[in-house]
Amino acid sequence: MNILKQAQRAKEASLKLAVLNTKTKNTALIAIAKALKRNSNAILQANKKDAEETKKSGLNDALIKRLMLDRHKISEMTEEARSVARLEDPAGRVLSQVELDKGLMLYQVACPIGVIGAIFESRPDAVVQISALCLKSGNSVILKGGSEAKNSNRILVEIISKAAEKNGIPKGAVQLIETREEVAEMLKLSDYISLIVPRGSGSFVKYVQEHTKIPVLGHSEGICHVYVDKYADMKKALDICFDAKCQYPAVCNAMETMLVHKDIAKRFLPLMIKKFRQAEVEIRGDEKTRKIVKGIKKAAEKDWKTEYNGLILSVKVVNDLNEAINHINRYGSRHTDAIATENMKNAEEFMDKVDSASVMWNASTRFADGFRYGKGAEVGISTAKIHARGPVGLEGLVIYKYKLVGKGQVVKDYIGRNARKFRHRIIKKLL
Amino acid sequence: MNILKQAQRAKEASLKLAVLNTKTKNTALIAIAKALKRNSNAILQANKKDAEETKKSGLNDALIKRLMLDRHKISEMTEEARSVARLEDPAGRVLSQVELDKGLMLYQVACPIGVIGAIFESRPDAVVQISALCLKSGNSVILKGGSEAKNSNRILVEIISKAAEKNGIPKGAVQLIETREEVAEMLKLSDYISLIVPRGSGSFVKYVQEHTKIPVLGHSEGICHVYVDKYADMKKALDICFDAKCQYPAVCNAMETMLVHKDIAKRFLPLMIKKFRQAEVEIRGDEKTRKIVKGIKKAAEKDWKTEYNGLILSVKVVNDLNEAINHINRYGSRHTDAIATENMKNAEEFMDKVDSASVMWNASTRFADGFRYGKGAEVGISTAKIHARGPVGLEGLVIYKYKLVGKGQVVKDYIGRNARKFRHRIIKKLL
Repeated sequence: MNILKQAQRAKEASLKLAVLNTKTKNTALIAIAKALKRNSNAILQANKKDAEETKKSGLNDALIKRLMLDRHKISEMTEEARSVARLEDPAGRVLSQVELDKGLMLYQVACPIGVIGAIFESRPDAVVQISALCLKSGNSVILKGGSEAKNSNRILVEIISKAAEKNGIPKGAVQLIETREEVAEMLKLSDYISLIVPRGSGSFVKYVQEHTKIPVLGHSEGICHVYVDKYADMKKALDICFDAKCQYPAVCNAMETMLVHKDIAKRFLPLMIKKFRQAEVEIRGDEKTRKIVKGIKKAAEKDWKTEYNGLILSVKVVNDLNEAINHINRYGSRHTDAIATENMKNAEEFMDKVDSASVMWNASTRFADGFRYGKGAEVGISTAKIHARGPVGLEGLVIYKYKLVGKGQVVKDYIGRNARKFRHRIIKKLL
Repeated sequence: MNILKQAQRAKEASLKLAVLNTKTKNTALIAIAKALKRNSNAILQANKKDAEETKKSGLNDALIKRLMLDRHKISEMTEEARSVARLEDPAGRVLSQVELDKGLMLYQVACPIGVIGAIFESRPDAVVQISALCLKSGNSVILKGGSEAKNSNRILVEIISKAAEKNGIPKGAVQLIETREEVAEMLKLSDYISLIVPRGSGSFVKYVQEHTKIPVLGHSEGICHVYVDKYADMKKALDICFDAKCQYPAVCNAMETMLVHKDIAKRFLPLMIKKFRQAEVEIRGDEKTRKIVKGIKKAAEKDWKTEYNGLILSVKVVNDLNEAINHINRYGSRHTDAIATENMKNAEEFMDKVDSASVMWNASTRFADGFRYGKGAEVGISTAKIHARGPVGLEGLVIYKYKLVGKGQVVKDYIGRNARKFRHRIIKKLL
């Protein structure tokens, strides 16, 4: 089937899916969880095939590790589907209600977006997570997983769509595409697909952003900062910076650049850098940093713009809070940035002025995550400036429509001499 | 100054603007209103020049009429700025507050988007309206008006930015660009400009949508329908359809296609079409319509996809509610569609299944408008599926950021054996 046809089918399905009640959607999610469990052997077999083929093609071990499933991971996948069933349905809620005039009532009601295009790399468990989130919010989804997981993806989508259809989800709600050419085709179908959710490396997300007119929810880079203020508590600052860099260096919310106020640098930097060196973090510093601690490589202009995703850290000594804020707004990626300080005024100024999705005071940047933020499930982390920003849960997969209920009213009566006046009486208003 | 520099200045200004308090922004808006009044003569002079040059260039009278200002229109502009000052500040509100753990509090706070690119056609009063909305919500704006109003636009922006700067608004918050080449440049600057708001003809908005990666808030088409159900009240249906088509045919929320249930068509169509003919509406009908009323031009496939913006209407007789819904979802522009019926079940099914920004039951499509919906001021009407949909007020010019306030917490403590558990206690949650 060609991609246009698939997208049309997904669109048709989405219109039906949008009006399903919560119970039907939840029943389908539970059925999906059961079907995954029941078909564990077949899933593991397909996954084994992927792993073997990937090994033959000489891809690296880290990738193969990410790709591989076992019984525990299948349990986790089924639990994921069940936990999405337990989340509140984001569609259907009345967000506002305004009586425009007597007998003319306006409702603003949350509803699904339509068709989501989800593109992700190697991990096949993403198939389950993303399908569950889309079904729960009432959206169709077209999935494209990593080609090295093609057998796993294929069987997972087959199990999911079969179980879903048996339980009242319209045919075509969960579909798979497999090749890069199909992705390129999909990115053009803005008449049918309303949102692209890419997960993967920065360069991959950038490719997606640059090749589509469909809105993209995600982030290509996580250049996160911690600023150690003049008024920082030494222990907190040491702990936060170490956690932000070392707890999991390969992820988008890890620290890439540490900014240190000049008045605390001489006390703070020797202790901090000692700690980092013990953890084998390579430091690249500006002139002032290199004067305070010996044996540090010089940071180039490029370092301030680099997401290392590993055990490298750039360090800069700044003259004041303002220089720190300006540095972050200039070089950062608007993802997550933190300040360590005991000075409330400075903390508030930092959080107000830093133009990032998450800003933090005395906490590690690693907290920027859908689960930790209490969202239950995460669609992704967005550095866009519209729709949904930061860690995005189910709320990012819905929009709203207006429903106006009248008794035959016409606009003519509200215009000109003796015009009827609108009441605009607010009955409910969440935002 | 080149456009890149302008955009960079606007971005810098936006970072300062984002932290201004409501009082400062309102004071600036009042000062702008006063400055416009004080400079009425100069504005009228510049506007006269535009009108003369446009007349010379042989453009049509309707365009010249839209372009021209008088003292009354200047009063309206000043009142517009004052009324935006009276609206609630959409930035700064806490949308949710969650205690992640003891002493670790997450706030979701509404904040401005950044830099808005606003492109509009001839009416110079749009300069005041859009600048006021952007300033109130804390956004910088780069304006591009119609070139036939260039003298008016220039003096208006000069007055607005001068009055704004004198009252604490950062330099560069309101800027003007003037040529099409500059627009083309601006549409590329996605690093600085976060949202484009185009107003104008469908082809113009389409051009904008097709030439930028920056999100666009607006609509290129308004192909609106009224479906007259089998259970319609005859008088209400006649009134609604007439109002939807004739009250102001040139606008986006006017009806372009009327769908009529076969069981009511024989009673309804002769009366309705008689009314339309008296108002000089040209009818283009499908076979069934042409059998019921004589002398009707045949509707071509193209007619179902056409926004006439004038006194033409396509009419189709449908077999049932479902056919009506499918027709609208297939040919409509997801703007505004209405059903006339006394049957609640049918009305609800229609409103649930029609995938449009506004869906209406027994009311004219012409109600889909920011003022009528009670928003005070309108940014535009959006047919997009993300961020903001339908008539958009100030709420469309803000997004949110997360502020996490801790006491030195690190993620390491929440991972592995003996991990601390998150509380996720919801203190406040608007959405």
